[in-house]
Amino acid sequence: MEEDLNQSAKETTTYNMEAQENEVENDPESNSLHQPLIKRKQTLSSTPLAMVGAKVSHIESLDYEYLMGFIFFTGVNFILTMVAAVLCVCFAPTAAGPGIPEIKAYLNGVDTPNMFGATTLIVKIIGSIGAVSAGLDLGKEGPLVHIGSCIASLLGQGGPDNYRIKWCWLRYFNNDRDRRDLITCGASSGVCAAFKAPVGGVLFALEEVATWWRSALLWRTFFSTAVVVVVLRASMEFCNSGNCGLFGQGGLIMFDVSGVTVRYNVMDIIPVTVIGVIGGVLGSLYNYLLHKVLRLYNLINEKGKIYKLLLSLTVSLFTSACLYGLPFLASCTPCDSSNPEYACPTTGRAGNFKQFNCPTGYYNDLATLLLTTNDDAVRNIFSTNTPKEFHIFSLIIFFALYCILGLFTFGIAVPSGLFLPIILMGSAYGRILGIAMESYTNIDQGLYSVLGAASLMAGSMRMTVSLCVIFLELTNNLLLLPITMLVLLIAKTVGDCFNPSIYEIILDLKGLPFLDAHPEPWMRNITVGDLADAKPPVVTLNGIEKVGRIVDLLKNTTHNGFPVVDEEPPPVGFAIGATKLHGIILRGHLVLALKKKWFLQEKRRTEEWEVCEKFTSVDLAERQGNIEEVTVTKDEMDMNIDLHPLANRTPYTVMESMSVAKALVLFRQVGLRHLLIVPEYQAAGASPVVGILTRQDLRAHNILSAFPHLAKSKGREKGN
Amino acid sequence: MEEDLNQSAKETTTYNMEAQENEVENDPESNSLHQPLIKRKQTLSSTPLAMVGAKVSHIESLDYEYLMGFIFFTGVNFILTMVAAVLCVCFAPTAAGPGIPEIKAYLNGVDTPNMFGATTLIVKIIGSIGAVSAGLDLGKEGPLVHIGSCIASLLGQGGPDNYRIKWCWLRYFNNDRDRRDLITCGASSGVCAAFKAPVGGVLFALEEVATWWRSALLWRTFFSTAVVVVVLRASMEFCNSGNCGLFGQGGLIMFDVSGVTVRYNVMDIIPVTVIGVIGGVLGSLYNYLLHKVLRLYNLINEKGKIYKLLLSLTVSLFTSACLYGLPFLASCTPCDSSNPEYACPTTGRAGNFKQFNCPTGYYNDLATLLLTTNDDAVRNIFSTNTPKEFHIFSLIIFFALYCILGLFTFGIAVPSGLFLPIILMGSAYGRILGIAMESYTNIDQGLYSVLGAASLMAGSMRMTVSLCVIFLELTNNLLLLPITMLVLLIAKTVGDCFNPSIYEIILDLKGLPFLDAHPEPWMRNITVGDLADAKPPVVTLNGIEKVGRIVDLLKNTTHNGFPVVDEEPPPVGFAIGATKLHGIILRGHLVLALKKKWFLQEKRRTEEWEVCEKFTSVDLAERQGNIEEVTVTKDEMDMNIDLHPLANRTPYTVMESMSVAKALVLFRQVGLRHLLIVPEYQAAGASPVVGILTRQDLRAHNILSAFPHLAKSKGREKGN
Repeated sequence: MEEDLNQSAKETTTYNMEAQENEVENDPESNSLHQPLIKRKQTLSSTPLAMVGAKVSHIESLDYEYLMGFIFFTGVNFILTMVAAVLCVCFAPTAAGPGIPEIKAYLNGVDTPNMFGATTLIVKIIGSIGAVSAGLDLGKEGPLVHIGSCIASLLGQGGPDNYRIKWCWLRYFNNDRDRRDLITCGASSGVCAAFKAPVGGVLFALEEVATWWRSALLWRTFFSTAVVVVVLRASMEFCNSGNCGLFGQGGLIMFDVSGVTVRYNVMDIIPVTVIGVIGGVLGSLYNYLLHKVLRLYNLINEKGKIYKLLLSLTVSLFTSACLYGLPFLASCTPCDSSNPEYACPTTGRAGNFKQFNCPTGYYNDLATLLLTTNDDAVRNIFSTNTPKEFHIFSLIIFFALYCILGLFTFGIAVPSGLFLPIILMGSAYGRILGIAMESYTNIDQGLYSVLGAASLMAGSMRMTVSLCVIFLELTNNLLLLPITMLVLLIAKTVGDCFNPSIYEIILDLKGLPFLDAHPEPWMRNITVGDLADAKPPVVTLNGIEKVGRIVDLLKNTTHNGFPVVDEEPPPVGFAIGATKLHGIILRGHLVLALKKKWFLQEKRRTEEWEVCEKFTSVDLAERQGNIEEVTVTKDEMDMNIDLHPLANRTPYTVMESMSVAKALVLFRQVGLRHLLIVPEYQAAGASPVVGILTRQDLRAHNILSAFPHLAKSKGREKGN
Repeated sequence: MEEDLNQSAKETTTYNMEAQENEVENDPESNSLHQPLIKRKQTLSSTPLAMVGAKVSHIESLDYEYLMGFIFFTGVNFILTMVAAVLCVCFAPTAAGPGIPEIKAYLNGVDTPNMFGATTLIVKIIGSIGAVSAGLDLGKEGPLVHIGSCIASLLGQGGPDNYRIKWCWLRYFNNDRDRRDLITCGASSGVCAAFKAPVGGVLFALEEVATWWRSALLWRTFFSTAVVVVVLRASMEFCNSGNCGLFGQGGLIMFDVSGVTVRYNVMDIIPVTVIGVIGGVLGSLYNYLLHKVLRLYNLINEKGKIYKLLLSLTVSLFTSACLYGLPFLASCTPCDSSNPEYACPTTGRAGNFKQFNCPTGYYNDLATLLLTTNDDAVRNIFSTNTPKEFHIFSLIIFFALYCILGLFTFGIAVPSGLFLPIILMGSAYGRILGIAMESYTNIDQGLYSVLGAASLMAGSMRMTVSLCVIFLELTNNLLLLPITMLVLLIAKTVGDCFNPSIYEIILDLKGLPFLDAHPEPWMRNITVGDLADAKPPVVTLNGIEKVGRIVDLLKNTTHNGFPVVDEEPPPVGFAIGATKLHGIILRGHLVLALKKKWFLQEKRRTEEWEVCEKFTSVDLAERQGNIEEVTVTKDEMDMNIDLHPLANRTPYTVMESMSVAKALVLFRQVGLRHLLIVPEYQAAGASPVVGILTRQDLRAHNILSAFPHLAKSKGREKGN
């Protein structure tokens, strides 16, 4: 034994020299920013700690070098985090987080300001690189989705807001519907680029992101992901021939487990069900805890920019300390020379079996998982045919660490994705479960960790088809499909029993007025007339209106649409004239009319040629400016504006007796901003508009606060 | 050479005996009904025709045996076709064809009578087995989709129409929306069962079949396909252990090409584009020709049942003659012993390299493709690493034959799918192209035929994502994904330039009023008021109406919905009372009221308890019977009915100034049957309803025939 150790010590010395030589060479296989660092540590630490009989001075120098390594590691991570956080805090607060909830809200009809601008795009790209390289527990997937949407939006409008290219054909995209389509395509391209999963990207956009879907959109997103895949493949081909330095390693499939012959029989449904059920519970628990943490973070972040920054940096320090310190807790495992597939210990390249502080011939399994990039950690933990590689103790430490990091990293002010943290947690959970159930089934532990990751994703994000296809495309194993489907469905069903999906929770926390597809049951018991009565009376404009009144209205209200009502002369034989709903006019168009001085001395209807002379279709399509920018002289205040040509003559209307549930279906299905309520009772002299409904009026939360008795009946229904 | 032939003759004799012995054994590998037949022919014909020096009597006996084989082959096919056709013609005409267009129409809101009944289901199952076994050029895929939908519909309503189980919870499914959902799930399960493609099934339902889609439906279809896959896997496991006789061969992946290492580079985009473009052109040409053939067939089928039957039997005879006769045109190819992967010639089992009329050591490539099941033909033509197996001459004969059969088989009165015929054509086209372009690229010929099949499918059916996933799941090769996507997109784009998809053509031929997602551009130039003016005036009912008038209306009109209008007493100070739209009442509910004698002596509004006593919610949900079944006495004719409680109080309405385009969006997005038009001008005394729009009123074709000037402006727009 002693001889062996001496032998290994000798080898170590030799090895040290080799390693130092290696360090000088450009190593094409290390695809992580941490690689040189880790290698250095390995070099330093390759003299086994177990050799307690060695000289004290040696140990002291070792301690010193570990400390230096720690400082260097933490320092670099700290600086990288700082870059990301400073950019996000100072230049583009919307770039923090994944961006997926905001995209989802945008496609539902809620525009978050500055979400798709050029600054956001640049900050998101640099910030995401910084945050991922800093070793934080976050992914690049969410940011890539946001980056894709930003690019799509910028391309569609011809460039950043102030430097737009004014090409003629670009105006075809200058409407809400095409903008939505472009952003959907961008989002699916982002998922495709993140996971190299073209079909998964399309389905993600369909299942999670989009509110309105139609066949043409399916085709378009599919086209954009096809282009992404072709470009990816072309650049990989270019890079694989050595033109890109450290980049360009890896194929189109990321965590390839296609080599595994999947043998499972009907009895394996039981462990698969167990994975799914526990995954669903853990996923919803994660949602619950993350909700609490995010509310806490909101309180901290509200205090000011400096607090935001400090929070991010604290998390970075904590992460670095854990990543560096925890592997010392793991014991060294001797290499298994019977498995020639994997070199052991791996030094100088990414892969399993990291040596870290162990003697030659031994590896530190926790270092394999922690001292590497997140992507490599997933690849290592997914690796099949390595049943003895990870000790359950190490896996539990890993799982616990990433649970904590996953909860506390997401809310900090850097671009961050949710996919990878959940995959990391889930894969560890799956592998632990695999070890625990080892005696019952013969499913490979690597597959267990794939299934664990899938179950936690479904339990937290509540997607099914898109996750299934993404996992299929990630792992390249079609035979896994049936069990993956089962796990996803079970986990989603279990999760749905406890709380809504993580994106819905975030949407709610951000206060975005997202309209759900389904009306609540109690919405059938209240009519839109009741809603209109509870609101302040509707403000209508006459077909030919005084300039002064319009300026007044625009300054004193925040409404975005005003019904335009005409008073008709009484028909022959009738005493009272009737009123007629002409249409609805948008705030932007009123501001435009004021800006362009579309004023008339007399009260008269205008001719078509007058309108065409004054306004072009491009003018009307533009989002118009602020009322504050408009100056109207006192004389002009008494003049008239003919609103008839500028109004939308055919707004969608509902009768006041319509239930809120049906109005909501109309509002969401047709994609409206304003819904006019017309009276049921067609009496002469009555106003033709009873009220106007907007998205905010139809939100369950707002209705319940105006009508508390509905909340009670809702409670009673639940109680029954 | 002569020695060789003698040698082979000797071997043949020995072989003959062996083969006869084999015939007695139960051969587990032959999974086709034709197998024993083919084997017999092979045995008979294994003495090579080339041996012209043999005895004349031998030749005569050979000729006799070929003739007997032909008669047997044709006869069996004839009987099988007859069974299928007689069932379809006499018992369930709706079971003929694929059924997918009708399902698509149902999910759009058009119910074809007897489409989902028990008789249809049984005829479809038996008929499909008959038609596929008869060797006709048709697939089981379309019928499986229809079978899935039938089962779903029957389960949802608790059994066939006359023998329903009246379980209490079944009534939860007794509404149009859940019925639609169930049928969608059934359709996706059908595709899943046909192609063993769970995700492909979901996407097929989404892309091709469904009109309204929501997230919950995605989840439900996914669940049903997951169950299908698990059941499939369990039964395959059971059968693979030899419990099912001839059944149970084959894995979860049908045409496995996962063994092929796909190596292609960016330059391969050129041949891939060529495949896509030609595939698109061929696909749309196929659509065009099939349209002509189906119109011809419609003329024949209209003449009577016997013509329908004769047509089917003629096609069967022609198919059998071609399948049996054409292989004699192909020359025999010597086996390539350097490829040990494939036994050559294959005898006594399915596979490549059929011997048929060739000497031992030779095979007949055309027999390999024609004298086998359609599934095996596809498998053979998809087979990779067999670059020299098929001679281009044989492939051209095969392609030409299946083009003819594909055009003339589809319209006959048997259950038939379109997928397999198109795959057969496309795979032959792809392989021909592969041989033609052999010198330019190094893509395998098997892959060419996969891509050719994909391109023809996309060119004819115009699906993209679902086809992509189905092909992925069929071929189990993820690396093919990028080029498959490209081929599909190019073929679809090219095809769209020429004509609509094949299903749309069939829908149009069947005269089903399918509502498209997008309004035509000229629909913006016409208002719903114009439409209402062109129709006969709307028939309204009073809130409390005479029984006589209702009976009259129901007997003399075919309307399904009637607006209910109330006349209110004039308010104080007004001369004339106003009218008020109360709601809309369905024909079914009027008939129900007559049946239940919901009559009042006096003109009064009823109380809620009276209504609840008379009608249960189950009554109102049932589809009600015919007016002819109702008997009303003369006394009762003078009584009144209070329609208020039975009417839908909140119908969706549009103003008469609304453009048809916007009304169509509302109609389709919300899924309506009736849309009420209310007047813009709210004068006293005017009717509160201007008109009522139904699906037929909003169809482009019907509007154009009522307003021919729109057709002209449409033409002019196109001309510009």
